[in-house]
Amino acid sequence: MNYCFGIDIGGTTVKMGLFQFDGKLVDKWEIKTRTENKGEAILPDVTKAINKKMSEKGLTKDNILGIGLGIPAPVTEAGIVPDTANLGWGYKEVKREMEELTGMHVEAGNDANVAALGEMWLGGGQGHRNMIMVTLGTGVGGGVIINGECVVGKHGAGGEIGHTCVNYEEEEHCGCGGKGCLEQYASATGITRLAKRRLAEDSEPSILREENALSAKAVFDAVKKGDRVAIEIATKFGKILGYALANIAAVCDPAVIVIGGGVSKAGPILFEYIEKSFKEKAFFANRDTKFALAELGNDAGICGAAKLILK
Amino acid sequence: MNYCFGIDIGGTTVKMGLFQFDGKLVDKWEIKTRTENKGEAILPDVTKAINKKMSEKGLTKDNILGIGLGIPAPVTEAGIVPDTANLGWGYKEVKREMEELTGMHVEAGNDANVAALGEMWLGGGQGHRNMIMVTLGTGVGGGVIINGECVVGKHGAGGEIGHTCVNYEEEEHCGCGGKGCLEQYASATGITRLAKRRLAEDSEPSILREENALSAKAVFDAVKKGDRVAIEIATKFGKILGYALANIAAVCDPAVIVIGGGVSKAGPILFEYIEKSFKEKAFFANRDTKFALAELGNDAGICGAAKLILK
Repeated sequence: MNYCFGIDIGGTTVKMGLFQFDGKLVDKWEIKTRTENKGEAILPDVTKAINKKMSEKGLTKDNILGIGLGIPAPVTEAGIVPDTANLGWGYKEVKREMEELTGMHVEAGNDANVAALGEMWLGGGQGHRNMIMVTLGTGVGGGVIINGECVVGKHGAGGEIGHTCVNYEEEEHCGCGGKGCLEQYASATGITRLAKRRLAEDSEPSILREENALSAKAVFDAVKKGDRVAIEIATKFGKILGYALANIAAVCDPAVIVIGGGVSKAGPILFEYIEKSFKEKAFFANRDTKFALAELGNDAGICGAAKLILK
Repeated sequence: MNYCFGIDIGGTTVKMGLFQFDGKLVDKWEIKTRTENKGEAILPDVTKAINKKMSEKGLTKDNILGIGLGIPAPVTEAGIVPDTANLGWGYKEVKREMEELTGMHVEAGNDANVAALGEMWLGGGQGHRNMIMVTLGTGVGGGVIINGECVVGKHGAGGEIGHTCVNYEEEEHCGCGGKGCLEQYASATGITRLAKRRLAEDSEPSILREENALSAKAVFDAVKKGDRVAIEIATKFGKILGYALANIAAVCDPAVIVIGGGVSKAGPILFEYIEKSFKEKAFFANRDTKFALAELGNDAGICGAAKLILK
């Protein structure tokens, strides 16, 4: 039996998975991400964990098809990270270094792109080869898959949907340095920001006014209870995200758009807002694009990383 | 010696090229596009022209690697046209029909995508594998190439850059039925429209007021003469197009953006307007994206069609 490793390197933990060649997840576990000293321990730690798991399972290098890595930074086609904020690395030839450390075949990709690949393989995008995934978490992550492959691009920065500009009048800065990025309105923090702005506009009664800690979850919980102000906020969010996705669909022509991240826990009610606005503005050829929720949760990264090897 | 045909089917003429396997264009010519009777004669006419050329050159089917077709309509990966406005066809299995007619291998793609492929192979995008091409003609056509291949998408409608929405306040309709499409501002007709709107705003002197037939060419000619009103119009055009391209670059991460079509005859002065605005709004990873003018003119289509075979 042949196996591969799917590994999702995050800023605080590294998620690790051992997969059979047919995609079955055999084992998964986590180790800590040690970012100190410019993150020099990260790849050696991952290598140790892999070797330990192999001896535990009685596997040799001959049984391993390779190791796939998802990394929270741009990653070029050659497996090079030009720079990274979260891990302490600067320029790093991840694929080459990891192949030298392990003596096994390695592929590396950006974590959001890799998660999209995972969702296409085993999750919300199953059965499709053209997909956009948008991850609504603290930020807005994106992954675009064309004909079964991630859009990596020249700098390894393909799929940065969260940093398309949706409001040229915005005066506050996004984390990326720009202004008016999709992330400023459609992430969990962005939705909270929309809610605060709306609540400050007037004094219309809303259960959101009783919330101690306003959040995207509180907004969608209130929507489900029919709260009018919350519905206004969700409508604005849906319009901004739906219109942005319509523009991306005109360029990428996906079969399906998968929505993931913490915000997606609100469930199918999201589509009432996002999909409706999408259809209003979509190019005619894209109007039947499907919407789906992500299904793999935190496992999307390890699954997609494995798929880098099993493609 | 092996050869292939690169064929660009337009609404009024079919451009045809015979290429050596190494990309050298050996011969090119045109035939009329007969769109009457639902365009039933088009593929048989092309077949006849191919057969005539082969006997003229003493070529047999064994010398021909295949026939590439560019078509002014969406074309799926399977070589199917779901529907077309210009040629009279409805649903048409172009690849299969053409293979039956000729007994040779056929590939088909959308004409704008195919032109982009041509520019990457032999024109303004040479040496790159990630490219956006935008063709500023009567409309705004687009082609996106990722890792050397056209973005075709689910419906064969990938790369429809001209129909991304750039102005949600627009009240006039685009030809596609939408409102606020890039095409309404950045095509030759779009630039003329911007110029008319600007001239109607006040009575500031401008050499454009003396033009009998206002056109994109007249606007850029006036820009070159330092006309202030024309510079304002060019600035607005550059902002709309540059900002739209910045958003597409965030998703596709191209190495180069190639500008083609009639408007591109204005030359490098275009970049002063488009590239400047692009850099203002581009995601940081995309700020060094190169800009280039298309180089192949009307031959981009036949070259790209040949490249569908020679890839």
